[in-house]
Amino acid sequence: MPIQFDVDPPVARLAAATAEFVREVVIPAERECGGSVHDAPEALRDTLQKGAREAGVFAPHVPARWGGHGLDLRGQAVVFEAAGYSLLGPLALNCAAPDEGNMHLLEKVATEEQKDRFLRPLAAGEVRSCFAMTEPAPGAGADPRSLRTTATRVPGGWRIDGRKWFISGANGAGFAIVMARTSGSPGDPGGATMFLVDADTPGMRIVRDIETLDEGLFAGHSELAFEECVVSEDRVLGAVDRGFENAQVRLGPARMTHCMRWLGAARRAQDVALERAGSRTAFGSVLGDLGMVQQMLADSEIDIEASRALILRTAWELDTGSTAAAQLTSVSKTFVAEAVNRVVDRAVQICGALGISAADAPLARLLREVRPFRIYDGPSETHRFAIARRAVKPYRQPRPEAAAGS
Amino acid sequence: MPIQFDVDPPVARLAAATAEFVREVVIPAERECGGSVHDAPEALRDTLQKGAREAGVFAPHVPARWGGHGLDLRGQAVVFEAAGYSLLGPLALNCAAPDEGNMHLLEKVATEEQKDRFLRPLAAGEVRSCFAMTEPAPGAGADPRSLRTTATRVPGGWRIDGRKWFISGANGAGFAIVMARTSGSPGDPGGATMFLVDADTPGMRIVRDIETLDEGLFAGHSELAFEECVVSEDRVLGAVDRGFENAQVRLGPARMTHCMRWLGAARRAQDVALERAGSRTAFGSVLGDLGMVQQMLADSEIDIEASRALILRTAWELDTGSTAAAQLTSVSKTFVAEAVNRVVDRAVQICGALGISAADAPLARLLREVRPFRIYDGPSETHRFAIARRAVKPYRQPRPEAAAGS
Amino acid sequence: MPIQFDVDPPVARLAAATAEFVREVVIPAERECGGSVHDAPEALRDTLQKGAREAGVFAPHVPARWGGHGLDLRGQAVVFEAAGYSLLGPLALNCAAPDEGNMHLLEKVATEEQKDRFLRPLAAGEVRSCFAMTEPAPGAGADPRSLRTTATRVPGGWRIDGRKWFISGANGAGFAIVMARTSGSPGDPGGATMFLVDADTPGMRIVRDIETLDEGLFAGHSELAFEECVVSEDRVLGAVDRGFENAQVRLGPARMTHCMRWLGAARRAQDVALERAGSRTAFGSVLGDLGMVQQMLADSEIDIEASRALILRTAWELDTGSTAAAQLTSVSKTFVAEAVNRVVDRAVQICGALGISAADAPLARLLREVRPFRIYDGPSETHRFAIARRAVKPYRQPRPEAAAGS
Amino acid sequence: MPIQFDVDPPVARLAAATAEFVREVVIPAERECGGSVHDAPEALRDTLQKGAREAGVFAPHVPARWGGHGLDLRGQAVVFEAAGYSLLGPLALNCAAPDEGNMHLLEKVATEEQKDRFLRPLAAGEVRSCFAMTEPAPGAGADPRSLRTTATRVPGGWRIDGRKWFISGANGAGFAIVMARTSGSPGDPGGATMFLVDADTPGMRIVRDIETLDEGLFAGHSELAFEECVVSEDRVLGAVDRGFENAQVRLGPARMTHCMRWLGAARRAQDVALERAGSRTAFGSVLGDLGMVQQMLADSEIDIEASRALILRTAWELDTGSTAAAQLTSVSKTFVAEAVNRVVDRAVQICGALGISAADAPLARLLREVRPFRIYDGPSETHRFAIARRAVKPYRQPRPEAAAGS
Repeated sequence: MPIQFDVDPPVARLAAATAEFVREVVIPAERECGGSVHDAPEALRDTLQKGAREAGVFAPHVPARWGGHGLDLRGQAVVFEAAGYSLLGPLALNCAAPDEGNMHLLEKVATEEQKDRFLRPLAAGEVRSCFAMTEPAPGAGADPRSLRTTATRVPGGWRIDGRKWFISGANGAGFAIVMARTSGSPGDPGGATMFLVDADTPGMRIVRDIETLDEGLFAGHSELAFEECVVSEDRVLGAVDRGFENAQVRLGPARMTHCMRWLGAARRAQDVALERAGSRTAFGSVLGDLGMVQQMLADSEIDIEASRALILRTAWELDTGSTAAAQLTSVSKTFVAEAVNRVVDRAVQICGALGISAADAPLARLLREVRPFRIYDGPSETHRFAIARRAVKPYRQPRPEAAAGS
Repeated sequence: MPIQFDVDPPVARLAAATAEFVREVVIPAERECGGSVHDAPEALRDTLQKGAREAGVFAPHVPARWGGHGLDLRGQAVVFEAAGYSLLGPLALNCAAPDEGNMHLLEKVATEEQKDRFLRPLAAGEVRSCFAMTEPAPGAGADPRSLRTTATRVPGGWRIDGRKWFISGANGAGFAIVMARTSGSPGDPGGATMFLVDADTPGMRIVRDIETLDEGLFAGHSELAFEECVVSEDRVLGAVDRGFENAQVRLGPARMTHCMRWLGAARRAQDVALERAGSRTAFGSVLGDLGMVQQMLADSEIDIEASRALILRTAWELDTGSTAAAQLTSVSKTFVAEAVNRVVDRAVQICGALGISAADAPLARLLREVRPFRIYDGPSETHRFAIARRAVKPYRQPRPEAAAGS
Repeated sequence: MPIQFDVDPPVARLAAATAEFVREVVIPAERECGGSVHDAPEALRDTLQKGAREAGVFAPHVPARWGGHGLDLRGQAVVFEAAGYSLLGPLALNCAAPDEGNMHLLEKVATEEQKDRFLRPLAAGEVRSCFAMTEPAPGAGADPRSLRTTATRVPGGWRIDGRKWFISGANGAGFAIVMARTSGSPGDPGGATMFLVDADTPGMRIVRDIETLDEGLFAGHSELAFEECVVSEDRVLGAVDRGFENAQVRLGPARMTHCMRWLGAARRAQDVALERAGSRTAFGSVLGDLGMVQQMLADSEIDIEASRALILRTAWELDTGSTAAAQLTSVSKTFVAEAVNRVVDRAVQICGALGISAADAPLARLLREVRPFRIYDGPSETHRFAIARRAVKPYRQPRPEAAAGS
Repeated sequence: MPIQFDVDPPVARLAAATAEFVREVVIPAERECGGSVHDAPEALRDTLQKGAREAGVFAPHVPARWGGHGLDLRGQAVVFEAAGYSLLGPLALNCAAPDEGNMHLLEKVATEEQKDRFLRPLAAGEVRSCFAMTEPAPGAGADPRSLRTTATRVPGGWRIDGRKWFISGANGAGFAIVMARTSGSPGDPGGATMFLVDADTPGMRIVRDIETLDEGLFAGHSELAFEECVVSEDRVLGAVDRGFENAQVRLGPARMTHCMRWLGAARRAQDVALERAGSRTAFGSVLGDLGMVQQMLADSEIDIEASRALILRTAWELDTGSTAAAQLTSVSKTFVAEAVNRVVDRAVQICGALGISAADAPLARLLREVRPFRIYDGPSETHRFAIARRAVKPYRQPRPEAAAGS
């Protein structure tokens, strides 16, 4: 079977239906929240998810057992790009961060009982969730090993103490997946454990909502405090002390699904720029006939095609369990995050005053939304560090360098 | 007298006083408006300007005759950078856009009577002003010759009809300087005239405030309508049909003063990043000892030094009336606008989650503020077009190319 | 059948055999010509091609009928990258430019008689060929429609007159494929015809060899003169006046095979850099542990992976005859040509003095070889123009812009 | 005295005379050596230097006492740029590397006797010299502290042992300035001493000439061996163990004079591109009217102006002995080296086939010449490291980070 890029017909049909749903239903709804998903009312989420169910495009990534279309990552690549064409699209399809990544994690590491209790309603859109890992300095950030939140054994369970911030979707979430240190000290490479914590558990509270540059995630980002927050033993997610390994289970695919959705946003920005370039004149030409505009448009097409090719390649590696998947995930996340930013930035430049207007086109908003993607899910620098380390590894000299010559 | 970069002692003292005033008075006031100048209350403007007067740093660019320090552009370069360290600094010193450029224009082309009537209160901070040139498509934008607003002779004066948008500071301004076509048709290189229009003139009204990515200018940007708006003959600013030439009188220096203020903002962002790099640890090192962070910090230092050197060079050309000033203004505006964006972007990246937080550091705001500078005052593409055209001009072949060979 | 990237086993085996042949036989032979393919003796070509036949890796792209392995473009992508790891690799496998592209062209448009006469010995490595299209200014260059060489009907055939330059491989070639204008005038989009011209045809002569930055093609680049050069009717290749269309038949795949070979060269440069980074110390660390070196290494890995993904995608489009192939070919050629230059440039920087030494590492040579690839086969600017034009096309307004608003 | 950029009239006259001499005498001579300074015959050097003396432009940087024009660095900035317009220009004026830097070093640290013996003939062009610091790995390279060549006290002087490579101008030089370790071990920050070694001193020999990418320096680069090479006590240059400090005396200004000369080369490349852009047509336009070409031309003008402004600023800091000079030298060297490479690269791209032709335009040669400048005199990475370290220094926290919070 040779290398091939044809999309399976059912996936292609789902992608086409998603594109139509986004165009006909989701984009018209953007004006209800000024394009800000953060500020979208709960009722809008309900309406859009109902629409997605009726259009047959709800939960593309969720296994059939839990009511979804059961797409593998290659299928998700095609459908999520179509969904990401509007910032509200992933919310409508119930494949937005952080819920989508949490569903994947639960499917992979939760017990059957935990799946029934937490995954089932999450997949159905009945509750939302959050993933509580990042901490204020000097805690876990770009370097997760700095983890400072602790979980201490108490009779019948664990007591969690610590502080988390930039926790997306926490406000209004039904439960949180919390990473806490069960052994070792900050800086140690292991010793973390994940816990499932219901929103109403005593000792867990939202300290404040954090206002950020982006407003593209439902409910935004919050700071959480854990103060003598006790959970029972059956709320340990995966094995004790295996939290960092389980985080990888979530993060690899989650990075790629972010790339897929943001690629859709980049395509949207480019289409706005193309429409402008085809209709607006300056200096006696249609904008699209001016060389510098053509250069920007072409560079964005190149960025989009290269992103798409890398995403598909990486999705295949992840779907087949290849050992190359970790390196390609870092490569793709770094490239796509930066490419998406370039595409949106160029679209803004081409559209001029319209590009920086917050109300008359979606570009000013997209510019704010895509910038943080170069930071979360591992900053570009952390991924580049990992990429280089893997690449150099086979060439490291065990011998002292003085003897090795040059 | 050899080439030299020493700042004259009185200018150096004014710059130091400005820096101290910004640090001690202006930056603490930022939290009163969440850093958004657009949303700053009128009372804050009054308080800050009063403080600037008391600190002896008010109106550095205004001729002594009108109560200012009478700095030339080289002096302004040093002082405006210090003022721009806070977005509120230029407002406090009454050297913010668009008033600062309008003062310069009035000083250069207004009659004595007009100066007394319009410049005097503007220089004193008693009123604000706006400059109404940009129009909705297909009117004047990156290409000002597309001007469509008309001014028609009527007995005793002129009747202005048309529409303007993205007019900064219009809301609450005491008067507008309005560009209108008095001869020719859209696309013609001449035929424009400037008019001084009081805010309460019948026929001029604010249609709406335009929400934009940036919020760094007091009163934001508005859309204006002119409908049978009649002004008397003595409100013609400069000669009839010489509006485009007069716009150049304003725009050259105005582009450079923008560069100076934004360079201060870039310096602020870099200082925030340096503070972070010197105190925060990750992967076992202070951030500032990690190579990729060092690369970003070094590139920003390079961008800042190159910007400053170009600004000083161009200010000198403008101060001495050199014919090279037009080319260097385009060169500097293009380089500095892009450099400032890079510096802020890198600071955001270095600061990570903090960099995209809207409340905990000024970086997320600065990121939004500096982006439009690559578009207004001539998009980078328009300046590059002008730079290349001037550079190629002496090499153009008058002969048909076929005969010229290669 | 889902999207997939597994290489068919026979292709994988051929690629592995090619990699081994290059490593064991070709790279050791580089020192015989100082790495300069241009200066390689004819005997070295013979020896290497004999070695390739013995290793079973000769002519991977040639249809079985003519003695090759008959790979499609996806297969070529994998094998040509392995061959390109040495500049001498493609010569050894008889898949170097311009012969490889000429074989493809002949296979597609030649008559059976012409195939037997020209393709058979070319595929077997018995003769070499050249493709004579580019002309000195103001003739055909980046814009092929400027074609000035003429072919005029004479009894029994055609008389060719004109001048060509930068014709790769012309010196010593057995025959040339010559593009000449058979109707219309320079600048017209049609009217070109291809001719097969034996090297000993009276009226065709090599004027001079052109010394260029690159020396990576056997026999280098020459300037050719055609003076009353008469060929018979059966030497028309393809239909009369269809030369530009036939050039596209050659150029699309030829651009991609260039990308494949140069990607191998980039991989070589990166491996040299990795070896250096893993063994050389400075400032108390192995180079590969310094952040700025890691950034360069990571960026090169990203460039290589994105190039490979784009090449495979485009090869699939070409193999399946997709209408998207033209756009993707332009996208890939532009991206890969620039990526390959970046990768080699970074490797030079990492290796320092060694990187610019012409004898002690292959990097200085590679730097020279890859630079022209951003110019030939269509400069990046021409491809960007084409990419943008295709992207804007569906958005062009038929209506006058004034009515369209913005 | 305000900031000003006017060039003193005598310097302006010398610069104009230099520009004329380069245009009328030096550029026509380029064809005698194919533009390769490395391959230029000794006689051509003599002829050109005689011409420079006759034109009154010889030795612009040399103090009047030794027969030169005694320019400070600001004056050199203007004149060296004019000289650098041809690769042979600095050779003609006797201000090429490494002699020019060695003259500066001798003037600053040599004894009167040493000046008379070594500086006098060097300044007059009677002999050439070299500066022997760089060593093969793992010796002194980007990190000079790795110095391994030793100088051991022997009766009446010192015995030097070790190996040096990439020593520019060594072949045919009258003497070498040699850096050797007189105390401490490789890696120590001190312990180096400089020695003046006559070319015919027993024990010093040229091992081989190193072929490199660039050929722009007379006599190229060599590898030197020191084997029991004994020099007398009066050949110590500066104080014992102060070699690294003395190297800084040489390197700061030498980095800037390199920048000045290469800026001239960049200007040459840009002028070739402008000439092409003004005369060559493609796609129905003069090249210079195509937007993407305009963008390249404009970016090169920007790079040139920013480089010039930075050079002048840094020259002033060095001339006035400012403490900011070290940081600005690193900033300028890094920016200018990269800017010059970009300018030449764009010129090559604009000129297409002509740009990569080694004989028909100087661009292919310039491309090779400028690349190593990003590596020698400190690679860009080393300078960025130094820039960042200096910038972060005032922000380093003495306190443990855990207590500092963030």
